Amino acid sequence: MDEFASFNAQLNRPIDAKNVEFQRMGRLKHIINAAQLTPELLQTLCRTADSIRRLAKTRRGNEALKSLLADKRAMLYFTQPSTRTFLSFMAACQILGLTCNEVRDPKTSSEVKRESRTDSIRMFSSYFDIIIMRSQIKDFAECCAYLMNRLEEQEKRSVPVINAGSGSDEHPTQALLDYYTIDRSFDFDEHSHSVESRLPALRATYPDLVPGVEHKTYAFCGDIGRGRTVRSLARVLAQFPGVSLFFVSADHPDLMLDDQLRQKLKRAGANVQEFHSLEADVNGRPLIEQIDCLYMTRIQREHNSESTEEELKQLDLSPFRLTLDRVHRMKEYAPILHPFPRDSVIDEIPIEVDNDPRAMYFRQARNGMWIRAALLVHLFDAADRLHEADSAAR
Amino acid sequence: MDEFASFNAQLNRPIDAKNVEFQRMGRLKHIINAAQLTPELLQTLCRTADSIRRLAKTRRGNEALKSLLADKRAMLYFTQPSTRTFLSFMAACQILGLTCNEVRDPKTSSEVKRESRTDSIRMFSSYFDIIIMRSQIKDFAECCAYLMNRLEEQEKRSVPVINAGSGSDEHPTQALLDYYTIDRSFDFDEHSHSVESRLPALRATYPDLVPGVEHKTYAFCGDIGRGRTVRSLARVLAQFPGVSLFFVSADHPDLMLDDQLRQKLKRAGANVQEFHSLEADVNGRPLIEQIDCLYMTRIQREHNSESTEEELKQLDLSPFRLTLDRVHRMKEYAPILHPFPRDSVIDEIPIEVDNDPRAMYFRQARNGMWIRAALLVHLFDAADRLHEADSAAR
Amino acid sequence: MDEFASFNAQLNRPIDAKNVEFQRMGRLKHIINAAQLTPELLQTLCRTADSIRRLAKTRRGNEALKSLLADKRAMLYFTQPSTRTFLSFMAACQILGLTCNEVRDPKTSSEVKRESRTDSIRMFSSYFDIIIMRSQIKDFAECCAYLMNRLEEQEKRSVPVINAGSGSDEHPTQALLDYYTIDRSFDFDEHSHSVESRLPALRATYPDLVPGVEHKTYAFCGDIGRGRTVRSLARVLAQFPGVSLFFVSADHPDLMLDDQLRQKLKRAGANVQEFHSLEADVNGRPLIEQIDCLYMTRIQREHNSESTEEELKQLDLSPFRLTLDRVHRMKEYAPILHPFPRDSVIDEIPIEVDNDPRAMYFRQARNGMWIRAALLVHLFDAADRLHEADSAAR
Repeated sequence: MDEFASFNAQLNRPIDAKNVEFQRMGRLKHIINAAQLTPELLQTLCRTADSIRRLAKTRRGNEALKSLLADKRAMLYFTQPSTRTFLSFMAACQILGLTCNEVRDPKTSSEVKRESRTDSIRMFSSYFDIIIMRSQIKDFAECCAYLMNRLEEQEKRSVPVINAGSGSDEHPTQALLDYYTIDRSFDFDEHSHSVESRLPALRATYPDLVPGVEHKTYAFCGDIGRGRTVRSLARVLAQFPGVSLFFVSADHPDLMLDDQLRQKLKRAGANVQEFHSLEADVNGRPLIEQIDCLYMTRIQREHNSESTEEELKQLDLSPFRLTLDRVHRMKEYAPILHPFPRDSVIDEIPIEVDNDPRAMYFRQARNGMWIRAALLVHLFDAADRLHEADSAAR
Repeated sequence: MDEFASFNAQLNRPIDAKNVEFQRMGRLKHIINAAQLTPELLQTLCRTADSIRRLAKTRRGNEALKSLLADKRAMLYFTQPSTRTFLSFMAACQILGLTCNEVRDPKTSSEVKRESRTDSIRMFSSYFDIIIMRSQIKDFAECCAYLMNRLEEQEKRSVPVINAGSGSDEHPTQALLDYYTIDRSFDFDEHSHSVESRLPALRATYPDLVPGVEHKTYAFCGDIGRGRTVRSLARVLAQFPGVSLFFVSADHPDLMLDDQLRQKLKRAGANVQEFHSLEADVNGRPLIEQIDCLYMTRIQREHNSESTEEELKQLDLSPFRLTLDRVHRMKEYAPILHPFPRDSVIDEIPIEVDNDPRAMYFRQARNGMWIRAALLVHLFDAADRLHEADSAAR
Repeated sequence: MDEFASFNAQLNRPIDAKNVEFQRMGRLKHIINAAQLTPELLQTLCRTADSIRRLAKTRRGNEALKSLLADKRAMLYFTQPSTRTFLSFMAACQILGLTCNEVRDPKTSSEVKRESRTDSIRMFSSYFDIIIMRSQIKDFAECCAYLMNRLEEQEKRSVPVINAGSGSDEHPTQALLDYYTIDRSFDFDEHSHSVESRLPALRATYPDLVPGVEHKTYAFCGDIGRGRTVRSLARVLAQFPGVSLFFVSADHPDLMLDDQLRQKLKRAGANVQEFHSLEADVNGRPLIEQIDCLYMTRIQREHNSESTEEELKQLDLSPFRLTLDRVHRMKEYAPILHPFPRDSVIDEIPIEVDNDPRAMYFRQARNGMWIRAALLVHLFDAADRLHEADSAAR
C-alpha cells in the first residue's frame, strides 16, 4: 500500500516503542495490538465491565449507561466481513448510548472515485468520534492510529482507533473478551448461586486451587497455527505468574504452534508444551483431566491452500474433538471457551456439551459485549462517571 | 433441516398444543402464528396501539414512548427480503426507543464458517433482547421459539421471538395490522371529524349496521390460494360471530381457496362463499355493492411456475380489478384494504382510487407500525407503564 | 418515467414558479434545488449551524441537541451510492436525535413485486417524518415534493423532502455546505486563535479586504462542465454584489463552462471569466495569486464517454493541479475548497497541501454535517427551541 509509505518507519519498530504512542498518561489512546493489554489495564477494564453489567440489570442503571456516551458517534468500518464481532461492538455501543454508523461494503462509492483510504479515514474522523475498524489490509488500523496521532500533533481533529481484527495478525479485543471470561470463571465468588464462595468446596477436591488467572494450566486445542485468537490470548496469559500453556493440535505444520510465538511465550516465562491429543499423557494422566481451562478453536478451512485441504482431509481429528465423555472427565470448575463460530460439520464441540456448566462459550460472547463497552468507556475517559453511576445505584 | 431435527416432535403437534408454549400466564412469550391471535389478545393489542398513537401526537408523549423500551435492543433478522415489513418493524421499535440491529444478508460470514443456524440464533440472544425474524426457511421462527423455551428451562438467557413472515406459511403480524385497520374502520366514533359518531347517519342508509368486526361480510379478492395474508386474516375473522367470508378469484387452482382452509373456516363457524368476479350475483345484487369490507391482494407472480405463468396470461383479470366505478358502488363506510405492494403493471387498484375515503391501504401501512409497537410493548410486559404515561398525558 | 406523467406540467415551469411551492410562509417545506438558497435563507441557516456547533462543544449542549428532534424519524433513501453525503446526513440527524432509517439498494424487494416508486415514497411517508433522497432518476426528488404537496392539499399525511443529489442536475445541500465554509472563512473574527480579529493585520497587506462573501473573486478549477457542485455554488454566489467568478478548465467541451450557465451567471450580475490555467494572466499577474477563494474539483471520469476518455488522456492536466508552490503564492487568507473525494491517482491536490492553513476541505466536510443539521432544524421549525437552548447554555 503505497499511501501508507509515510508510516513505514513507524511500522518497522519494536512493539514496545510503538505502544507508547497508542497511550497517553497511562490510558489507551488507540487499541491496536494485544501487547497493549498489560495486567494493570486488564484489571481496570474487567472491573469497568463488571460495573456495566451490574448497571445493566436495572432499568435505571440502563438509563445511566445510555446517557454515558450519548454525545458521541461511532464509525464501524468493517470491510472484512464479521457478523459476530460487528454485532458485539454494535451492542456495546448501544448500551452506552453511543450512536453507530457503519461502512461494510469494501467497494464504497468513494473508492470508485479513486479516493485514497487515508482520505476516507479522515472523512470518518470529521463526522464521528471513534473509528472501530476491521480490515483485510495488514497494518491498516495501525496506520490509522499514526494518522490520528499526526493530526493531533497538528492540533487538528483526531479520534481513537480500535482494531477489531486486521488481516491475519491482530485481534486484541477478542483476547480481551477471552481474558474477561477466564477472569470471571476463576472468581469463584461470583458464580455461586448462594452467598458463599464455591472455593472452599472446590478445595476439598483441588487443594491447590487459587482464585484468579495465575497458577493455572491452559490448553489450546484445534487450529493453533492460524488462530489469531490463540496467539493473542496466549501472549496475554503468559504475562501472569505460574502459567502453563499446552497446545494441542494435529501434526501438521499449518496447525501447530509456530516457532516465533513459542519463543516469545517462553521468554515471557510461561511453561509451554505441545501435544497431539486431548488424551496425551501428562505426568501419567490424560491431559484433558489435568487442565484448568480449555480453549477450543475451529480449523480455519477458509485459509487452506488446496494442498493443505487435501492433507487435512487425511487427518484423524477425533483426538481434538471435545466429546461429552471428555467434558465429564475435566476438572469440575474448568471453563471451556471457544471464540466461535464452531464448525457445525465436523462437530468440534457437539451441542450436547452446551448444557454442561463448564461450557462458557455463549457466556463468552456476551462477555465480549460487556468488555467492549468497558473499552469504549476507557477510551472516552468516562470511567469516573460510570463508577459514580454504579455507586449511586447500589 | 437436520439441525432442527430435535424439534420435530414439537413441530408435528396440533396448533393449540403448540400455542400454549408460546404464552405465559395469559401473555404472549413469542408470536409465531396467527392462531395465537384470540379475540381477547386482539382487543388488548388494539387498545395498546390506540394509546401509543395518542401519545405519539405530542412531543412529550413521544418522549414517554421513547423511554419505554430504551433499555432493550432488538435483532431484526430478515434474511428473506422485505422492505415494507422491515421498515414497519424498525419504525415500531424506534417509537419505543428500542435500539435496532439488523442482519439481512442470508450469506453472513458465520454461515461461510459453517456455523449452525441455532448457534447464530443463540448469538443473537446473547447480544439482544428480542429476535424479530423473517426467513425463507419453513418453521424456522417456530424452532427458534422452542430453542428459547429450552434455554429458559435450563435457566439460561432466553428472549422473545417474533415471526415476521416465514416461508409461505405464516405472517401473523400482517393479520394483526389488517385486523387493527378493520377494527378502527368499524369504530364509527373515531373517524368522525366532528365530535359525533358517524353511526346514526350511516344507520339511516344501513339500518342493520353495528360497530365492531362482528356481523360483517368480508370479501377477499385476487390471489386467494397463495396469499398468506388472506389465509391468516380469514382465520382471525372467522373467530367472531356473524362473519361471512367471500373469496373472489379467477378460476385457477393456484389462485383459489384451498380445501384445507375452507374446512377450517367453516368449522370455526364462518359463512364461506366463493366467486369469480367482484360483480358476481349475491342474492340478486352484485357482490361489490353488498360487502362491508374489501381485502384486495396482488397476484404473486414471483411464485408462478412456468406453466402457471402461461396460464395466468390467458386469464381475464378485469373481474378482479377495483375500478373507480366499482368503488363508487360500494357501501359508504366499507373499508378497502390491500397488504401492499400493489402491482403497478396490472393496476389491480388504480391510483385514482387512492383519494376515495374508503381507501385504507396507506393508513393500513401506518397502522402496521402502531400495532407492531403494541406487540413489542406486550411482549416486554410494558403495557402498564404505557397506560400510566397515557393517563398522565391526558 | 410514466408514473410521474401527472407531474409533467409542474416540472415544465420556470424555477421561480416552482420554488414558491417548496416553501410556506418564508420557510422551506422541501429543499429541491439550489435556487431556493436565497441570501436571507443562507444567513438563517448559517447562524443556525453556528448555534449547533456551539452547543455540540459540551456534553450538556449535546444533550439539548439530541432531544431537539428526538420525536422524529428520517428515511435516507439513497439509491444512488454516496458514502460521503450519506454519512454526513446520518451524522447531522444523529446530532439532533433524529432516528435514521435507510434504503440504499436500488433493487428493493418492492420493486421486484412491481410496486411503483410513488407507492414506495408514500410508504416511507407513512412510517417516517422526512425523506432525504439521492437518486439517479432525474427530477425524482422534485416529483416527490409535488406528491407530498398534493397529499397535504388532501389533508393527508405529508412530510418534507430533501434532495440530497439527484441525477446530474441538482445537489443543493452541497452548495449549502460550500457556502457555509466560505462564509466562515471570510468571517475573520472566528478563526483567530486570539481574541482579536485577523482583519486589521490582513488589511496591512490587502487594503481592500472586507468580511463576508461579497466583493470577492472565486476561482473554480477542474471539471466545470460536469461538476454539479460548481454549477450550484456559482449560482448561489452570483446573487451577492461584487462577485467575480473565474472558471479554470482544460480546453475540452465536456470540461468547460456551458453556455446556459454562463448566461445565467452574467444575468445575475456576476463578472464571469474563463481560463485554461491556474497560471493564466489576469491584469498582468497569475490568476492563482489574485483570487480570494479557490474551489477545486475532481475530473469525473466515471461520466466519460469512451471517446472523451481517450481525449482526456491526451490533455496536459498540470495547469490545473494545485501544487504546494501554487498554494504558497495564494493570498494568505484565501480558502481552498474541494467537494471531495479528490482523485488520489492524478493528485489534483497533493497531500502536502493538507497542512496549509488555507486548506479547508476537511473542515468543509465537517461543515456539511453542521449545515445539514441546521437545514433539518429549519425544516422541522425547531430553530426557536434550538436558539433557546443555545442562549441557556451561554
